[in-house]
Amino acid sequence: MAAAAGAGILPPMDAIDPPGRPTLDPTALDPTALEPGALDPTALEPGALEPGALEPGALDRLFREARTAYAWKPDAVPDDTLRALHGLLKMGPTSANCSPARFVFVRSDEGKAKLKQALSPGNVEKTMSAPVIAIVAHDPKFYDELPRLFPHADARSWFAGNWSLADTTAFRNGTLQGAYLILAARALGLDCGPMSGFDNARLDELFFAGSGWKSNFLVNLGFGVWGPEYTRAPRLSFDEACRLA
Amino acid sequence: MAAAAGAGILPPMDAIDPPGRPTLDPTALDPTALEPGALDPTALEPGALEPGALEPGALDRLFREARTAYAWKPDAVPDDTLRALHGLLKMGPTSANCSPARFVFVRSDEGKAKLKQALSPGNVEKTMSAPVIAIVAHDPKFYDELPRLFPHADARSWFAGNWSLADTTAFRNGTLQGAYLILAARALGLDCGPMSGFDNARLDELFFAGSGWKSNFLVNLGFGVWGPEYTRAPRLSFDEACRLA
Repeated sequence: MAAAAGAGILPPMDAIDPPGRPTLDPTALDPTALEPGALDPTALEPGALEPGALEPGALDRLFREARTAYAWKPDAVPDDTLRALHGLLKMGPTSANCSPARFVFVRSDEGKAKLKQALSPGNVEKTMSAPVIAIVAHDPKFYDELPRLFPHADARSWFAGNWSLADTTAFRNGTLQGAYLILAARALGLDCGPMSGFDNARLDELFFAGSGWKSNFLVNLGFGVWGPEYTRAPRLSFDEACRLA
Repeated sequence: MAAAAGAGILPPMDAIDPPGRPTLDPTALDPTALEPGALDPTALEPGALEPGALEPGALDRLFREARTAYAWKPDAVPDDTLRALHGLLKMGPTSANCSPARFVFVRSDEGKAKLKQALSPGNVEKTMSAPVIAIVAHDPKFYDELPRLFPHADARSWFAGNWSLADTTAFRNGTLQGAYLILAARALGLDCGPMSGFDNARLDELFFAGSGWKSNFLVNLGFGVWGPEYTRAPRLSFDEACRLA
């Protein structure tokens, strides 16, 4: 991936959230960009919630009050929690159950020292202080598992001879699984700091020389610390991002 | 995207789940591929759950008992629910808050007739019978919104001159937002049927000739109907998909 203009300030792809902790000027935000009541747990009540919906506190935990973390409490994340995390996220849907995502949970001093070599400078502090960093990757040869994962048909043959289709499928579905990881972590009581600010090729050399896995993005995991100055950035409104047809 | 071998049986990319309703032979599945207790709501209890975790029923609703739907109850999905759905999913994290995803919620007879022209034949029945079909798309020029969405820096300039970076960022983050849609729908009590089985270029001609948006995948939305024969396919175990470092 070529470097973007401005890479000296903020590395390209650095960027599910930017490096460092943004200090937003709240007056710079357009208050109309947050729809009225969008963060109000009661805003969905008037007839919009279906009977099977989660209770409002769970919607807050997953979406409405969840924030990207840049600073961390010192509490460790037990390996059992990481196993529980995978036990949830792996149940999310993927194309023909292809499940291409692979994960490395970096939490030892040695693992962090290795990862540090691939990080953008602006991401080092927040990442090294996180209890765990999940490398979200995918196996480009995910299709070799399809005879077991998708026994309905000879799904391996759709991908084995078609690099372009396999590559797009691995990236799309590995990314879906990365999003399932983010939301499964929140569902388990963890906070997340996802980011793309690292050198993918260098990380792949350091961690995946034997397996051929390809890194996609990183998710810092732990228990976040937030300050009062940390204002949520605006989102597009329904009418800006959605159409009814 | 070139057609894969086997496209006559199952169109390529047809396939966050396959067309039609799979009739799995349960004896074809490797029972060891499901980790012991993975679907047991009590399996996470022994010390693995953090204090902020959702209650087990919510984890079931989101991940453990949620299934891709192929058949639907006749109940409509109100437009207010679709607005609530976007109100949740838009809060999920994206790279520099770039929020590239765009959504079309197809639920009128005219909209469905238009969409039908782009569907793979095997996906027509399950899709036309769904109360709503969400087209998950993205705006390749998402960066024009960055001065408002990410006022911390001149983020527009990182992407405006770099087609490859913008394209990868739109696909990765639009896909993340598509996963947020799936899990937000489940959180609101809806069931989902995500799929990739359609002609993206044809859909883009039909729906996005004016906007330049690009389709990514589809998610049927409604209230699912399941039969007893519909067995869950296996998943990779933690030791197969994950490493600790």
